Amino acid sequence: MNLEQILSTIREEVSPLTGQGRVADYIPELSSQDPGKFGMAIETLSGESYSVGDAGDKFTIQSISKVLTLSLAFSQLGDKLWNRMGVEPTGNPFNSLVQLEYEKGKPRNPLVNAGALVVSDILISRTAYALKDLLQFVNELAGEEIVFNQEVARSEKEWGYINRAMVNFMKGHDNIENPTEQVLDMYYHQCSIEMNCVQLARTFLYLANHGINPRNGEKILSRSQSKRLMSLMLTCGLYDEAGEFAFRVGLPGKSGVGGGIVAIIPGKMSLAVWSPGLNDHGNSLAGIMALELFTTKTGLSIF
Amino acid sequence: MNLEQILSTIREEVSPLTGQGRVADYIPELSSQDPGKFGMAIETLSGESYSVGDAGDKFTIQSISKVLTLSLAFSQLGDKLWNRMGVEPTGNPFNSLVQLEYEKGKPRNPLVNAGALVVSDILISRTAYALKDLLQFVNELAGEEIVFNQEVARSEKEWGYINRAMVNFMKGHDNIENPTEQVLDMYYHQCSIEMNCVQLARTFLYLANHGINPRNGEKILSRSQSKRLMSLMLTCGLYDEAGEFAFRVGLPGKSGVGGGIVAIIPGKMSLAVWSPGLNDHGNSLAGIMALELFTTKTGLSIF
Amino acid sequence: MNLEQILSTIREEVSPLTGQGRVADYIPELSSQDPGKFGMAIETLSGESYSVGDAGDKFTIQSISKVLTLSLAFSQLGDKLWNRMGVEPTGNPFNSLVQLEYEKGKPRNPLVNAGALVVSDILISRTAYALKDLLQFVNELAGEEIVFNQEVARSEKEWGYINRAMVNFMKGHDNIENPTEQVLDMYYHQCSIEMNCVQLARTFLYLANHGINPRNGEKILSRSQSKRLMSLMLTCGLYDEAGEFAFRVGLPGKSGVGGGIVAIIPGKMSLAVWSPGLNDHGNSLAGIMALELFTTKTGLSIF
Amino acid sequence: MNLEQILSTIREEVSPLTGQGRVADYIPELSSQDPGKFGMAIETLSGESYSVGDAGDKFTIQSISKVLTLSLAFSQLGDKLWNRMGVEPTGNPFNSLVQLEYEKGKPRNPLVNAGALVVSDILISRTAYALKDLLQFVNELAGEEIVFNQEVARSEKEWGYINRAMVNFMKGHDNIENPTEQVLDMYYHQCSIEMNCVQLARTFLYLANHGINPRNGEKILSRSQSKRLMSLMLTCGLYDEAGEFAFRVGLPGKSGVGGGIVAIIPGKMSLAVWSPGLNDHGNSLAGIMALELFTTKTGLSIF
Repeated sequence: MNLEQILSTIREEVSPLTGQGRVADYIPELSSQDPGKFGMAIETLSGESYSVGDAGDKFTIQSISKVLTLSLAFSQLGDKLWNRMGVEPTGNPFNSLVQLEYEKGKPRNPLVNAGALVVSDILISRTAYALKDLLQFVNELAGEEIVFNQEVARSEKEWGYINRAMVNFMKGHDNIENPTEQVLDMYYHQCSIEMNCVQLARTFLYLANHGINPRNGEKILSRSQSKRLMSLMLTCGLYDEAGEFAFRVGLPGKSGVGGGIVAIIPGKMSLAVWSPGLNDHGNSLAGIMALELFTTKTGLSIF
Repeated sequence: MNLEQILSTIREEVSPLTGQGRVADYIPELSSQDPGKFGMAIETLSGESYSVGDAGDKFTIQSISKVLTLSLAFSQLGDKLWNRMGVEPTGNPFNSLVQLEYEKGKPRNPLVNAGALVVSDILISRTAYALKDLLQFVNELAGEEIVFNQEVARSEKEWGYINRAMVNFMKGHDNIENPTEQVLDMYYHQCSIEMNCVQLARTFLYLANHGINPRNGEKILSRSQSKRLMSLMLTCGLYDEAGEFAFRVGLPGKSGVGGGIVAIIPGKMSLAVWSPGLNDHGNSLAGIMALELFTTKTGLSIF
Repeated sequence: MNLEQILSTIREEVSPLTGQGRVADYIPELSSQDPGKFGMAIETLSGESYSVGDAGDKFTIQSISKVLTLSLAFSQLGDKLWNRMGVEPTGNPFNSLVQLEYEKGKPRNPLVNAGALVVSDILISRTAYALKDLLQFVNELAGEEIVFNQEVARSEKEWGYINRAMVNFMKGHDNIENPTEQVLDMYYHQCSIEMNCVQLARTFLYLANHGINPRNGEKILSRSQSKRLMSLMLTCGLYDEAGEFAFRVGLPGKSGVGGGIVAIIPGKMSLAVWSPGLNDHGNSLAGIMALELFTTKTGLSIF
Repeated sequence: MNLEQILSTIREEVSPLTGQGRVADYIPELSSQDPGKFGMAIETLSGESYSVGDAGDKFTIQSISKVLTLSLAFSQLGDKLWNRMGVEPTGNPFNSLVQLEYEKGKPRNPLVNAGALVVSDILISRTAYALKDLLQFVNELAGEEIVFNQEVARSEKEWGYINRAMVNFMKGHDNIENPTEQVLDMYYHQCSIEMNCVQLARTFLYLANHGINPRNGEKILSRSQSKRLMSLMLTCGLYDEAGEFAFRVGLPGKSGVGGGIVAIIPGKMSLAVWSPGLNDHGNSLAGIMALELFTTKTGLSIF
């Protein structure tokens, strides 16, 4: 089977799962998503594109944005980044304060909410135009204009009490430099970035390409940094389900509560999948299944 | 540089670290190890062997044996295994009871002590000759006779109060079927398996070969099972330093308190390194550095 | 109303609760108890005795014995005791290992299982006849011969995996001096002491009398030690329900999984109540209600 | 010795401790306090007043105010209060978020910060004049005009990131009804109430008097509610040092980070002590010692 046929088969096989799960309902903009939607896209380093289903529908990428801000901060600060956060998985949900308290305000890794908030703080400290810079960075990766969904950003910020708790807690432990509301503003804007599966897969191709934007040859991360970032995705990318995802799928990936997941096959391709129905861990039910089917059918895996 | 030269360079570069760290001292048999020792060996699927330093010195493989018993149990039981334990990393030390209590006696994964004790219990339940079977299994992988260090096994069992606590705790939660002393006996014997680096690298070549013993073509694990096992090594193989190891080294690996570490480059080769001086997480100081140097110098990594 | 009438009224008012709750079922000897039973007894320092219901039925006092062994150890060692354990409430169930791990094998207080096991260890270290001494001590308080229920002791020890986990864990942290099985033997024997409510109330009168056995004037604890011991009962006597008990009843007390509870009104009297049906925290459902009714009806409380 | 002599002796005996400890330094208004200060005052139900040292110096009562707002809320809502928080001690520091996360935003008791924030929220929900009402309530107890230290309130609110984390966390779990900044405003004002030891002892005499303001006979709490409130003070009044305080002092008490402690001898008297040097648990070093000396010298204790 070629990749096109494989995508078709996957779409069929996951169809019993689409419509299942629970759509994120903490803000109206997410709860109105149709749980029956399913899209998937692949971009290869050799320039091929494949997609299936609702791969042209836009959604907010949410926590997937953590990899983008982390890439930006890693390229700017290098290993100094790790003075502010660790690289270990947590075994706790994405928004847990327990580990944060035991470790005195230092997040376990940059892919849980606490870590991503510190990354946002770092980006703000470097420039007053952090949001604009981020968008510029994403535009260059996507090769077209990407925008924030301002309504989603506003709504999430209004209702985001747990993240507000977290950033204040870290500020109380001197691990946030800027005003907490400014950090939250940055964070919720990055989460509100809107893309479809095709754009998302294209945007993440720099990781498959070991840190180089294949569109223009620009080096975003060194080969070693790229390896490190993907290793973080594998060990920490799906919160307290990271082990299960590594176990079943075997690829570095990152999920978002909007129902999207990206996954990378280093040296080969990037994948994006989207289906808004979530499992108990807050990850796309059909999305995880689709990626597992993909690695099973193709035998492609990092292991 | 070829692999032989790389090993020589690594040996030189890690030499400031050998003699550093703390040799395990909870039993006399381990505390008498010379912290200045360092050995490393590579076995490739194409049949090449490389080694350097004290690669011919024997040591007890300790927790590295968890991958071997897990392979045996996985091949026998398949996915039924996961009714008894999870596949998630813990963020806690290897012998923590905290997570075990929150999860009512179900270990987070098979590579922490609690999980390995359940695996031992499973092997005992299948046959009265579990220890003999294990040795037979290891002999076939190593291609020569491997033995237990009975003195180490006895000594560890005598002083192993925390593991005894753990197995009793799980028995109290109905997750151990056999008498606790019998489970501990099995567990400490597997830990006492003695090998040198060359034998160890050779023994683990079946994982690089996607589950097939390259020596005789025997299928130990399916390709999918092999992927899953290596994903567990990557996310959980070095206890609460698993993330750091994945981040720096980027290979599935497993460490033992005797100072050994194995690592796999899927489809290519297996590596074994040994140096008894441990860091604060109980992993070989020089060993981790050697593996990081290896992936940096060769560019070989799963990412 | 006099105390006799009050006991009668209480018996009536708790009758809807007797037969409710769950009888301890981890060993056959306890699970065969009749949940419909209810007895209560009062002994005053002025020499009066009152009782109602099944106050003459014998039951094993279980964890209530922790106060007796603690009194013995406190009188022998004084404040040196507190090098081995703390005096703080836990907020965790009686058999939790979590706090024990965070505090490296030092129990939070002597009235949780871990602490009582350390107390048993202390008593064993002082004399080879610890069990005989304990019985002698209890006999003098009760004024008659009290015995162990050997069958219960044996059965509990056989099934007591969690306590065995705990004592091994503490041994691994150097907070147990004697062989773990010997400590468990001591512990389960003390738990198996059999009394009825009348005997139990009489036995604990020394605490109401500020540390002096009123039967013979013998000083068991100093006035200050007696105060300290009762403060421990108030803050830690009913496990993770200690606050609720202090809140509702307002007396120092100690419960046992056999369904018994003792409570002290300092300077006045001791109370014993028994009913085998337990609530979710492992404390007697009707027993707690009876003591709350008693303090409400009499206005007797330490506050 | 009479009480006057006892206070003099205590003052002398604690003098080596005054000047020791660490003055709270998270806001300038507290860090400028003189650690050498020590004052103590007693008010008895029979109308006597005793004081020693700096008993006329004003300080902010900080967390001692939690008992006052709790009394107000308990008198207004009765047992409905306990739908919003528990009555169990925590074993954690005053500002821990760990327990709060495990129990989904429901504080363990009303005397830790999280619980007091919920109490503030409850008072705000009842009236738009909650702050004015509280001051009126305190004025009537003190018998003179008491005021907030607005500068302290403002400063604490500005730097109170951990409390802001806590109230947002509870808001995210639907256990805060009003805007979080409004709740914090109420909370920091109550903490900024300024009194000296004499006023503080007088204010708390209603608890010694079983809930009745002895000044005017007004019933603030029922006898049973008063008992319950003092039991909470005994089990939870000194955070993670509550057990130690109960053990050494044996009285219901409540401490504040400004260096004040109140303690009650039910049916007899109230005590207030102040010395700004704090121990590691955030409680007044000399203050605790003074209260321990008092109960030792007088034999007065609830046990």
